[in-house]
Amino acid sequence: MNTSASSRYAPLKNDTFLRACLRLATDYTPVWMMRQAGRFLPEYRATRARAGSFMGLATSTDYATEVTLQPLERFPIDAAILFSDILTVPDAMGLGLSFALGEGPRFASPVRDEAAVARLAVPDMDKLRYVFDAVSSIRLALDGRVPLIGFAGSPWTLACYMVEGAGSDDYRLVKTMLYSRPDLMHQMLQINADAVALYLNCQIEAGAQAVMIFDSWGGVLADGAFQEFSLAYTRRVLSQLHKNFGGARIPSIVFTKGGGLWLDDMADLDCNVLGLDWTVNLTKARIIVGGSKALQGNLDPNVLFAQASQIEAEVIKVLNAFGTPHTGPGSGPTHIFNLGHGISQHTPPEHVAALVQAVHYHSRQMR
Amino acid sequence: MNTSASSRYAPLKNDTFLRACLRLATDYTPVWMMRQAGRFLPEYRATRARAGSFMGLATSTDYATEVTLQPLERFPIDAAILFSDILTVPDAMGLGLSFALGEGPRFASPVRDEAAVARLAVPDMDKLRYVFDAVSSIRLALDGRVPLIGFAGSPWTLACYMVEGAGSDDYRLVKTMLYSRPDLMHQMLQINADAVALYLNCQIEAGAQAVMIFDSWGGVLADGAFQEFSLAYTRRVLSQLHKNFGGARIPSIVFTKGGGLWLDDMADLDCNVLGLDWTVNLTKARIIVGGSKALQGNLDPNVLFAQASQIEAEVIKVLNAFGTPHTGPGSGPTHIFNLGHGISQHTPPEHVAALVQAVHYHSRQMR
Repeated sequence: MNTSASSRYAPLKNDTFLRACLRLATDYTPVWMMRQAGRFLPEYRATRARAGSFMGLATSTDYATEVTLQPLERFPIDAAILFSDILTVPDAMGLGLSFALGEGPRFASPVRDEAAVARLAVPDMDKLRYVFDAVSSIRLALDGRVPLIGFAGSPWTLACYMVEGAGSDDYRLVKTMLYSRPDLMHQMLQINADAVALYLNCQIEAGAQAVMIFDSWGGVLADGAFQEFSLAYTRRVLSQLHKNFGGARIPSIVFTKGGGLWLDDMADLDCNVLGLDWTVNLTKARIIVGGSKALQGNLDPNVLFAQASQIEAEVIKVLNAFGTPHTGPGSGPTHIFNLGHGISQHTPPEHVAALVQAVHYHSRQMR
Repeated sequence: MNTSASSRYAPLKNDTFLRACLRLATDYTPVWMMRQAGRFLPEYRATRARAGSFMGLATSTDYATEVTLQPLERFPIDAAILFSDILTVPDAMGLGLSFALGEGPRFASPVRDEAAVARLAVPDMDKLRYVFDAVSSIRLALDGRVPLIGFAGSPWTLACYMVEGAGSDDYRLVKTMLYSRPDLMHQMLQINADAVALYLNCQIEAGAQAVMIFDSWGGVLADGAFQEFSLAYTRRVLSQLHKNFGGARIPSIVFTKGGGLWLDDMADLDCNVLGLDWTVNLTKARIIVGGSKALQGNLDPNVLFAQASQIEAEVIKVLNAFGTPHTGPGSGPTHIFNLGHGISQHTPPEHVAALVQAVHYHSRQMR
């Protein structure tokens, strides 16, 4: 299998993650963690202090490269993920992103009426050049150690932030628009979907070897609304993505937090992997989805606050819930170990080492 | 059917809600709303201002009676629910509950170690006398108009607040205890379950005609952990509840927010009704559960920010998702209309009127 996305870069030494994405047999279950380049690492906090701000970090090629590689220096994880933020896309649309310290993201110009929606357009990708530069720089710095994952927010998740203007605990403003002006919501979601697809394709062209769509807020929607306002636009993104680039297949991952109830609706998505949070039973998920896609997940990040022996026991539970993965030639059910959501900033790094070791050790035993 | 819980009180004029709980035919689908006695009503805000604080309101028989009846004066809803808070029980355990303005509940003495768990015990119900007095006063004031629902938090949901000491967005402290000291967590949950059962039985003896267990935070647990740390203790509560009192059956309702993935595990609970949030498809839920229990739910409260015509359309979707309820003699599938979570404080009251009218009108048409 050729898993190098472009001859500019060193050949891949560890293709376990990419093979598992494509439902090919691997010697062990690959593992990486959402938000693995982040605040739980003291070296990340040091780099961020030097950068001055979150966006200072994300917009600097050197800093973004540095923090993306930090977890790889500590842990034998099987993939790197671009250090960035899902809100770069609406920022490039002109909404004015800022991160106030300890407050989370905020947009200066949220999208709350017909005039604001009318002003939206797929942004010029030149405004996101810093992201693609970071992708190329990281890919080069990785030197083929592990594959690099690019990512974007889902059209619906971006719309949540664009309308609310910040995080929310009730999604009142975005749902008010959804229920009272579904026409405006559809208009915004189409633009978001086309922007996300273009953005991910540019990441692939810059060197991303897999891409992941984070539908972080799909799970707040009602049944029916999820299918109409989130899933349909994730499909629209997927339909436009490069499936191959530079002679390599580019797997895609869709992760809907809180989306476990809709796995049957997601089973026919045109992607390679479904990410699952910790509420999902992997045995059942494999039955519903397993025939067509790899599964990624799904340890509760809070398990990492327990002692190593307990972390190991919970890792084994997750591995056993998925069951024995495919071995031998051809394709079959495969599992990529991950947390069910981003790692907590309070996590002791040595507990992550215990997690990675347990996944690698026990998943070899299972085969 | 005798639906009067005690001869002290006036006979019931509208038993639609209780009949639907017991899976008996009704002329229309009954409707009430979680948090219907609350901040979205100007008259509630006026009473609360007079009471000075949330606990001033909840601990006064007169005020609690007044606000419980307020939504009934505006809307022809089919049930009243005791005005109180799920945290009265841990408060009676000595944890020191307070509500800082605009901040939500807080405990002065959260339960975070072995010594704190060892000090826990089922509280003396005399400390909760104000709740039972309110139940009796409300039941008297209702004069048989509609039935009165009593309620409590689930053992797990109470444990979340008891350990975190306040609301949380990651449940880190309570899950750290769960994963690192499951023995302590089980000890706390047993005490909580026995306290909740006793508390609900006292409410029934005081005049509650149905009881509801709010497992508001069951949905944050991992698959496996939910069954072990939440559902098992909800079962323990249910096993101790009065099923009949004063010659009347006392239906019980279990509502696990975010619990839609575990409906198959909940199908054999010893309760009469399962409450569902808006992520659940009622058609599927009826197939999984419908043979044994009534279903309650599940409109997204944010629908109430749309115009009346859109509210009506969404009400019809929910009614149609459940489908035609049981008619005729004997028992069969029944539906109690509700929101999928508490009503937002920002809801325009006239939109609630549109909701109630739409449920009553269209559910009669369906029969």
